[in-house]
Amino acid sequence: MSDPFFHPVSGFDLPRFAGVPTFMRLPHVAPGDARFGDVQLGIIGVPWDSGTTNRPGPRHGPRQLRDASTMIRAEHPVSGVRPFEAANLADLGDVGPNPADIPDSMARITAFYEKVVGAGIRPLTAGGDHLTTLPVLRAVAAKGPVGMIHFDSHTDLFDSYFGGTMYTHGTPFRRAVEEGLLDPKRVVQIGIRGTMYDHEDRDFAKAEGIRIIPIEEFFARGIADVMAEAREIVGDGDTYISYDIDFVDPTFAPGTGTPEVGGPNSYQALQVVRELTGVRIVGADLVEVSPPFDASGGTAFLGVSIMFELLCQMVSHLAR
Amino acid sequence: MSDPFFHPVSGFDLPRFAGVPTFMRLPHVAPGDARFGDVQLGIIGVPWDSGTTNRPGPRHGPRQLRDASTMIRAEHPVSGVRPFEAANLADLGDVGPNPADIPDSMARITAFYEKVVGAGIRPLTAGGDHLTTLPVLRAVAAKGPVGMIHFDSHTDLFDSYFGGTMYTHGTPFRRAVEEGLLDPKRVVQIGIRGTMYDHEDRDFAKAEGIRIIPIEEFFARGIADVMAEAREIVGDGDTYISYDIDFVDPTFAPGTGTPEVGGPNSYQALQVVRELTGVRIVGADLVEVSPPFDASGGTAFLGVSIMFELLCQMVSHLAR
Amino acid sequence: MSDPFFHPVSGFDLPRFAGVPTFMRLPHVAPGDARFGDVQLGIIGVPWDSGTTNRPGPRHGPRQLRDASTMIRAEHPVSGVRPFEAANLADLGDVGPNPADIPDSMARITAFYEKVVGAGIRPLTAGGDHLTTLPVLRAVAAKGPVGMIHFDSHTDLFDSYFGGTMYTHGTPFRRAVEEGLLDPKRVVQIGIRGTMYDHEDRDFAKAEGIRIIPIEEFFARGIADVMAEAREIVGDGDTYISYDIDFVDPTFAPGTGTPEVGGPNSYQALQVVRELTGVRIVGADLVEVSPPFDASGGTAFLGVSIMFELLCQMVSHLAR
Amino acid sequence: MSDPFFHPVSGFDLPRFAGVPTFMRLPHVAPGDARFGDVQLGIIGVPWDSGTTNRPGPRHGPRQLRDASTMIRAEHPVSGVRPFEAANLADLGDVGPNPADIPDSMARITAFYEKVVGAGIRPLTAGGDHLTTLPVLRAVAAKGPVGMIHFDSHTDLFDSYFGGTMYTHGTPFRRAVEEGLLDPKRVVQIGIRGTMYDHEDRDFAKAEGIRIIPIEEFFARGIADVMAEAREIVGDGDTYISYDIDFVDPTFAPGTGTPEVGGPNSYQALQVVRELTGVRIVGADLVEVSPPFDASGGTAFLGVSIMFELLCQMVSHLAR
Amino acid sequence: MSDPFFHPVSGFDLPRFAGVPTFMRLPHVAPGDARFGDVQLGIIGVPWDSGTTNRPGPRHGPRQLRDASTMIRAEHPVSGVRPFEAANLADLGDVGPNPADIPDSMARITAFYEKVVGAGIRPLTAGGDHLTTLPVLRAVAAKGPVGMIHFDSHTDLFDSYFGGTMYTHGTPFRRAVEEGLLDPKRVVQIGIRGTMYDHEDRDFAKAEGIRIIPIEEFFARGIADVMAEAREIVGDGDTYISYDIDFVDPTFAPGTGTPEVGGPNSYQALQVVRELTGVRIVGADLVEVSPPFDASGGTAFLGVSIMFELLCQMVSHLAR
Amino acid sequence: MSDPFFHPVSGFDLPRFAGVPTFMRLPHVAPGDARFGDVQLGIIGVPWDSGTTNRPGPRHGPRQLRDASTMIRAEHPVSGVRPFEAANLADLGDVGPNPADIPDSMARITAFYEKVVGAGIRPLTAGGDHLTTLPVLRAVAAKGPVGMIHFDSHTDLFDSYFGGTMYTHGTPFRRAVEEGLLDPKRVVQIGIRGTMYDHEDRDFAKAEGIRIIPIEEFFARGIADVMAEAREIVGDGDTYISYDIDFVDPTFAPGTGTPEVGGPNSYQALQVVRELTGVRIVGADLVEVSPPFDASGGTAFLGVSIMFELLCQMVSHLAR
Repeated sequence: MSDPFFHPVSGFDLPRFAGVPTFMRLPHVAPGDARFGDVQLGIIGVPWDSGTTNRPGPRHGPRQLRDASTMIRAEHPVSGVRPFEAANLADLGDVGPNPADIPDSMARITAFYEKVVGAGIRPLTAGGDHLTTLPVLRAVAAKGPVGMIHFDSHTDLFDSYFGGTMYTHGTPFRRAVEEGLLDPKRVVQIGIRGTMYDHEDRDFAKAEGIRIIPIEEFFARGIADVMAEAREIVGDGDTYISYDIDFVDPTFAPGTGTPEVGGPNSYQALQVVRELTGVRIVGADLVEVSPPFDASGGTAFLGVSIMFELLCQMVSHLAR
Repeated sequence: MSDPFFHPVSGFDLPRFAGVPTFMRLPHVAPGDARFGDVQLGIIGVPWDSGTTNRPGPRHGPRQLRDASTMIRAEHPVSGVRPFEAANLADLGDVGPNPADIPDSMARITAFYEKVVGAGIRPLTAGGDHLTTLPVLRAVAAKGPVGMIHFDSHTDLFDSYFGGTMYTHGTPFRRAVEEGLLDPKRVVQIGIRGTMYDHEDRDFAKAEGIRIIPIEEFFARGIADVMAEAREIVGDGDTYISYDIDFVDPTFAPGTGTPEVGGPNSYQALQVVRELTGVRIVGADLVEVSPPFDASGGTAFLGVSIMFELLCQMVSHLAR
Repeated sequence: MSDPFFHPVSGFDLPRFAGVPTFMRLPHVAPGDARFGDVQLGIIGVPWDSGTTNRPGPRHGPRQLRDASTMIRAEHPVSGVRPFEAANLADLGDVGPNPADIPDSMARITAFYEKVVGAGIRPLTAGGDHLTTLPVLRAVAAKGPVGMIHFDSHTDLFDSYFGGTMYTHGTPFRRAVEEGLLDPKRVVQIGIRGTMYDHEDRDFAKAEGIRIIPIEEFFARGIADVMAEAREIVGDGDTYISYDIDFVDPTFAPGTGTPEVGGPNSYQALQVVRELTGVRIVGADLVEVSPPFDASGGTAFLGVSIMFELLCQMVSHLAR
Repeated sequence: MSDPFFHPVSGFDLPRFAGVPTFMRLPHVAPGDARFGDVQLGIIGVPWDSGTTNRPGPRHGPRQLRDASTMIRAEHPVSGVRPFEAANLADLGDVGPNPADIPDSMARITAFYEKVVGAGIRPLTAGGDHLTTLPVLRAVAAKGPVGMIHFDSHTDLFDSYFGGTMYTHGTPFRRAVEEGLLDPKRVVQIGIRGTMYDHEDRDFAKAEGIRIIPIEEFFARGIADVMAEAREIVGDGDTYISYDIDFVDPTFAPGTGTPEVGGPNSYQALQVVRELTGVRIVGADLVEVSPPFDASGGTAFLGVSIMFELLCQMVSHLAR
Repeated sequence: MSDPFFHPVSGFDLPRFAGVPTFMRLPHVAPGDARFGDVQLGIIGVPWDSGTTNRPGPRHGPRQLRDASTMIRAEHPVSGVRPFEAANLADLGDVGPNPADIPDSMARITAFYEKVVGAGIRPLTAGGDHLTTLPVLRAVAAKGPVGMIHFDSHTDLFDSYFGGTMYTHGTPFRRAVEEGLLDPKRVVQIGIRGTMYDHEDRDFAKAEGIRIIPIEEFFARGIADVMAEAREIVGDGDTYISYDIDFVDPTFAPGTGTPEVGGPNSYQALQVVRELTGVRIVGADLVEVSPPFDASGGTAFLGVSIMFELLCQMVSHLAR
Repeated sequence: MSDPFFHPVSGFDLPRFAGVPTFMRLPHVAPGDARFGDVQLGIIGVPWDSGTTNRPGPRHGPRQLRDASTMIRAEHPVSGVRPFEAANLADLGDVGPNPADIPDSMARITAFYEKVVGAGIRPLTAGGDHLTTLPVLRAVAAKGPVGMIHFDSHTDLFDSYFGGTMYTHGTPFRRAVEEGLLDPKRVVQIGIRGTMYDHEDRDFAKAEGIRIIPIEEFFARGIADVMAEAREIVGDGDTYISYDIDFVDPTFAPGTGTPEVGGPNSYQALQVVRELTGVRIVGADLVEVSPPFDASGGTAFLGVSIMFELLCQMVSHLAR
């Protein structure tokens, strides 16, 4: 049972629309705060999208996700996990990026996560565009490469954009492999689809041993089978979960910058996370939620529903 | 063959966008009007959402549903039922609620429905939030408890909110069971999902014998199997159908106050009603359509499509 | 110079879109917190709209206003006032209302404000519909009637709605006069316009000595002249400022439930507050901001711009 | 005092959002109905936009205007006119157009208005695009040319479009002059602005004696002066008022197909109608409200506010 | 390998949001341009919706589709087809319609397509409403009747509307059969659903031998089986593909004028086109995309994704 | 009279909604095209917003502005200038930026404008955020400092953001003065308002001799007086016009990233440009239009209306 200090207020006591919106209505505990050392799992916002090559917006993601997260209640409907009672969870606040300087922002993000990891806190990140994952991995995988289960419609394995630009939201995992943050043999990318420029990213994946499961295979085999393979690929080692909201069909998640039609529905979006049981999750993220393209707020609500699934898995792991 | 007075004007004669919008372009026949006594099935708006604990809006539902209903034509595409010719249908207008007084509003609603039921008219209600169903049942089930097939993502079986408030859109069926309006052994709730506060509602259901079919079971078994069980539960007796639009996945029905991701799609939303054949329907409702959260109007259009399915079932029953 | 604990973080250090959104990026200091006793001016959210007779939504106002308030900077462009340095300001959080029980909600609000007033804190309220002002005044004017400068398109002086309902957002000031919270001779209502039901509210105003300045007179005389009269009416005594966002033309402030066309523009919306210099403000509110009708967020941004003007006036007064 | 049958229900009795929406909540009295002969002023919808050369949508105008009109109350705030008590007003329903046949639609409209005029009813039309006015004038001015005060940003005096098409929303008044429906010497067009194709329309105006008051002159002289000239131009004779919502600045009225920036605000939009006192109005219209471009509904609300001003003028005239 | 003149610029060189938006970023080559004779497959916009009987808007379709098409890349993710390299493709511009004259517009469209067909160019059309297909077929099937695979929720086989109007978006294929443009024995309509006026269209289909596959059969049999039958029906002869976006469920494609709930999802929307391999496509269209009802732009993006699938099939055929 | 090659197609020939959208429907003439040397005034898009410190979006500006510009006709309504006949105007296309590299993007922009200036073409720029102006000035003012009339709500004269970042949309004119591109004595900034961080920007202006006219002074003195002073400040020398759309009140121009309430209306937005007669304009821009925050498109339409005013001034100057 977690410390009551870390329990969210119930919607039976304070209506969902009331109160200063923190993630999941958890207490806001910034690095340096008295209770920081007691946190076991921290939710962190990274309001940053400078790596976006097309439609910007994810810098506004964390705030909208906090707002939507006040709709989340205490218990998982299937597993019965009550994450906020199982461990000490907190909203660790946002990393303050520099929207006009990519290297500076990456340094700020890594520095923040070093504090988090250093305090023994498992991070669940609310992005931010997908370049966010790179500086997070620099802290999370500082001691050695980790495996990764990656839900996305894109591989994000390109070498560069616009004639040599190495750090964009289309290149983070190329860099992460090069930097030794990811063990490519323990990486699986699920849901890949959409028209392609060329095969450069897929060639890299093949050369390094990264497993790509395109959406056609995903639908043909079914979730249980695909996820069993994914669990086998990452095995028992430390594993990072990176969930790009554009994995989901853009009708279910319109609020994102690089949609690809023909993806999973919202039920499948949750089911894939439910199949992560047993994976040793050392960190996770939900990225590319872009409020300017999410007029109804439905993308953010789906996003926090996925985040709740993720933290139920992460908390179960903490308890083990 | 119904009285031509009750036939809607065709879109071939008057374009769908023209005319004062009544439900399904039916004549507006208020209680007290000359033709009130000839009506067999009446559609009633209850523009009321004072029981809403989170995001209000369903008070605007009936007007938007009337507008969208002008898109509905004369014949069911599968069964071939032509409801407006099979019986005398009318738009009975709206119950005038008191938005600042819940007991007064409930009394007004029950009084209106007593007139309707007293005139032998089967009511199809366009809500309004789900608390609406309680004062409706007080009239419809005045002579004794009825069964209920309930499509929803929530049980609405809670005891109270905010430290003792007994009448909210989360409590109507708890009250209805307590008041003897529903026979809990003949109640089935389909589609339940989403994060939970606690088990208080489910404990009540279990104690009373209410059958809950969660969404995971719904998808695993399929519609035909689930609905066969539902028909068996309610059997031959008088049965009420309560359809909360949040049964449907919020991507298909964003215009509602308490969405839960991972629900049925629009095809399934219609199919469950098509499986009601043979049920003795004494009344039905479609509730929780909230126009302020339905920028595109798609939720209202789905709502009236469901209402059309419901009245095809109700009319077939009248003809039997 | 205020305590640095109460200084908002600058947009030069943390981008405007980052961080947990409190009012004006001030620290969140709830009643009971260690620093509560040091606060001089507190901003309070009242997410409540149960008194709304037409289009609900202001219950979502405080959250959207907090979000928009992160755009506000440190210094007034004309007066040069730097409010966050002039006094200790804080976000005191939201009053938790009971959306399904009006008397209970009013009791909760008054109890909260009694704590605030009891601690010597001047309250600036972010509503909430206009009924909010009544339970606030019960605390603020507990020792005796206060004067009021009231910006609005409606008088909110009606006796009752819907056949006897006494507490709605159209009746707060009738009740406040009856309860001795307002001194009607020291009340002025500015901007009144729109079609009318009857003269009952105006008859009451006339009988009690409340001064109504209709919009036609407002435009004809100009702001300086009208506000000089307003200052004269309230004189040197304790005065409450109540600012209904529907005072402003609905094109500039669409996010509200009962708009009336033909009102002031956004520049005039600020100017009227700038003319409050010298008024002894014991409390103020900005009410009726309704996010569901404010797709662009412009109403909330105007709302917090007005709140900044109000607190600059209130702070100057504190300093005197 | 009008027949109580024709009195709208009050918002104190039935909330504004409830009920089947007719214009101003008046009774729906179609031609042929028993009470048709008792109507003195009828509001008519013409849901038609086939003459639109750019962005269509006004076919949806009447329905949205009816919806918004439920916000209108009983009495004019300045003149004190209570139009619904001063004369028998009714919603006469919509003319059913043929959206795919312009000549057929024009014939249907003229036929409908001949019944209205024949019954001695003064028509207030809710369009529809501006071509609507031509078939209306064919009925209203059947006995001889009338004068016209025309609020618009365009002259609508062009000869033809697209190489010879004579009937579009840019040509109605050219046709009306040619057909002898308008006396050009008694026509004034107010608010004209925006970039121009050429001078062909202005040359026609000059040749025929139509007075054009461009927006620069309108702002420079002020409303009182401009409207005094307008009253002088039309004199004592029968006069038609045609009000294109694009007269108003598109920020105040975005829901229209051919906006021109730099127009009057909403207060001025009402004032010009208030200056029509004494004009012998034989018919009026409010056209070009286009709901698909009016996401917030503000244009429709402004539109019905203008319609209320128009009918207060028309009713005063009936009473004289 | 196609002429490099016809290669679109890559998103790696020019960001997707930059540049004048042509279809798929192809060169704009109008009839009469120097390179017109080199084009093998031309994409043509027909911004026209005068045949629309309900909600207009498709006249704005081509422009929004061009904008969205800049998101499309170079290669098909499954087949590996690189259409822009396989043949010379170009944006041929828009046909200039006459929005106020249906016969004139049809003549203009047919004349334009005669030039295209005369130059040996296969046309892919971006509508426009469904009446567009009729004048296109007059050029494409000038030499003799063609077969057609038609994706839609409606048959568009009605005889007339509004008492005898023969040319609307509900009648094109009735006319096309009558005019000998379509061989009804080689026509299949897939996805038909929604409430019906009567059986007149289906009776015509039955009498002529047109095969209708309703949505219930489509879902029951599955795409592979249904499309095998479709390919068998059209056989080896010249075949036209007509794709009405309302074939897709309106949640996935809200931007259309006559939606019917309960249709295919976006993945299925693409799969049906992928099953056209081997069909001898002489022309294709994507119609009824209506931007005013597509606030998020998702419908247009799905539309261009379908267009990309269509041109991959058409190009493969050119190469054979 | 200009070369007919450069004449836009008329809306009488091709409806406004048809055709590939170039700026003002002008021919698209990229650098290197055969007719490039004949262009006298070129409109250039700079789809770039990497310098934005708060809400991104202006990278989408040029495309939306091109779309809206198809509403512009041939002649100025007051001056009678017909710019497209007075000189050879063209759409020069977009500069391709690198969204993930600020220095690279600035170099690309300057290189593009050097070609333009080198060819003797006067540039009118459609941004892009305000940092765009700096690399443009590096080409336009390559031979020596120019004067500037700057319409904005912000000075954009800050030294740096986020602890030393020198190139953001809040710093361009500080850099331009430092680089000798602007003569500060010949710079005037009009419309400045909104809450402030500190005085650092104003101190710089004072020290350098830049004249700031705050909005209060602007409204008090009136446009004619203020603009006479502006013309005097820049005198006869080469002058650049920089128009930030946030100069205009955010109700009239919501589609922008850093709005400040209380600004000029749309009529005033045009009038200030009409007062530029006689100024020697060597280049101009309209920046900060942000489509993601402009749901109705009204900001873009106002933007192109301002651009039309600007090019009428620029063309008059060319003719002199």
